[in-house]
Amino acid sequence: MTDIRIDDRGFTLGHGLFETVLWAPAGPAHWDAHRERLERGCRTIGLPLPDRGELLAAAEGAAARLGGAERGAVRINWSAGPGARGLDPPDVFAPVLTASASPLGPPPGPVTLATAKVRRNDRSPASRVKSLSYLDNVLARAEARAAGAEEALMLNTAGEVACAAAANIFWIRHEEVFTPDLDCGVLDGIMRREVIAACHRLGVPVQEVFANPGRIAGAPMFITNSLVGLRSVSSLDGAPLPASPLVKAIVKVLSPGT
Amino acid sequence: MTDIRIDDRGFTLGHGLFETVLWAPAGPAHWDAHRERLERGCRTIGLPLPDRGELLAAAEGAAARLGGAERGAVRINWSAGPGARGLDPPDVFAPVLTASASPLGPPPGPVTLATAKVRRNDRSPASRVKSLSYLDNVLARAEARAAGAEEALMLNTAGEVACAAAANIFWIRHEEVFTPDLDCGVLDGIMRREVIAACHRLGVPVQEVFANPGRIAGAPMFITNSLVGLRSVSSLDGAPLPASPLVKAIVKVLSPGT
Repeated sequence: MTDIRIDDRGFTLGHGLFETVLWAPAGPAHWDAHRERLERGCRTIGLPLPDRGELLAAAEGAAARLGGAERGAVRINWSAGPGARGLDPPDVFAPVLTASASPLGPPPGPVTLATAKVRRNDRSPASRVKSLSYLDNVLARAEARAAGAEEALMLNTAGEVACAAAANIFWIRHEEVFTPDLDCGVLDGIMRREVIAACHRLGVPVQEVFANPGRIAGAPMFITNSLVGLRSVSSLDGAPLPASPLVKAIVKVLSPGT
Repeated sequence: MTDIRIDDRGFTLGHGLFETVLWAPAGPAHWDAHRERLERGCRTIGLPLPDRGELLAAAEGAAARLGGAERGAVRINWSAGPGARGLDPPDVFAPVLTASASPLGPPPGPVTLATAKVRRNDRSPASRVKSLSYLDNVLARAEARAAGAEEALMLNTAGEVACAAAANIFWIRHEEVFTPDLDCGVLDGIMRREVIAACHRLGVPVQEVFANPGRIAGAPMFITNSLVGLRSVSSLDGAPLPASPLVKAIVKVLSPGT
């Protein structure tokens, strides 16, 4: 594991991006989608793009250290690299590519959610990328844990439903699937896209919406991310949520490699 | 300069704090205020407090590398230390203390501001601390530079005036001084406190307020931080701003060591 200099803007300012990739013995899941999202993120936060070959090599190098693990998580960091004191970037960026890997257990069961007081900053482009500035998410998760739940439901600064601290969120009403619009300040999740595509294949309507918390109360709900795939939500703020047969149907048609 | 491990939560999640301290040959300015703010920040983001002796020793060690520079900036980082993948903290934190120093030139002259589209997240406690998750500020500054200005004026998510990307902001109307209330989502700046105290000494009324941009338009304005002290604003969004004799009076009575 390479170390990071303390004048790396990824450390001093959270000026950098990351991806966490599900890795099976056969290789990475949705590699191109992760790479493309990282590249979009670079454009959003003003970083040069990583070399595609070096990116894959770094990930593979980290994955090799997984040993015989059945499933692993490979995390890639693309940080802005060294900079002088202050916010202004260097004349020429020298970004730093690092990667690490950790074994993953079997997919976890349903999750409990608690609504966090920390809000998602939909008024910053940073809310749309996986950046190294993740403190709001850390604080939201800590709130959820303190409330006895496993994960946080985050609203945005307009009070609309946004996402979980480390996942996208979906809910179901009258056989229709809903998820917050990207403009709510949510990450363009790779599993989020996969679920939307799966719904299209099933002929199930999906809507990307701006929703107040009242619109999701009591509805069957699930969260998604690249590592856990899809997890049903068993309760929100202590209130048990119903299951929906639609969730099983969606899981069944999710594309291979998720 | 010690390096940082790539599994340090300060790097992976921006879970950590920093202070930048003005350092003269005689020693640090406002050391106790910096230390106390760092300690308050620890409580806000759930970190153990640094040992006071070790904190000062780290800062002094970095300052020693300034050589003969008349004025320096010492940056102290208190990062959450190593953690497993994901947002949840380790059972026991092992925070990492690092410090660096850079020489400072003479105090700069007036500054030009441009209003950024990136908003300050007043709905997160992180907006009140100097954290390693500073990407919103980086993006705001980049916007200002792209608009031909030196620094950004940031509004909060309610559209109220909050701060500059790396400074607090003040303005003057009818011989009264105004600055955004801390609940606007602004850092509890050390020079902000010093200016408020200076106004009290001068018998000048100071109000901490929730203000829409219309309330500051055309007013004499200045920004403050620990390194530059007080800087007049010469223009906002391209419109020149008037000077005020009050600013000179405030500078005169700022306590020694600022």
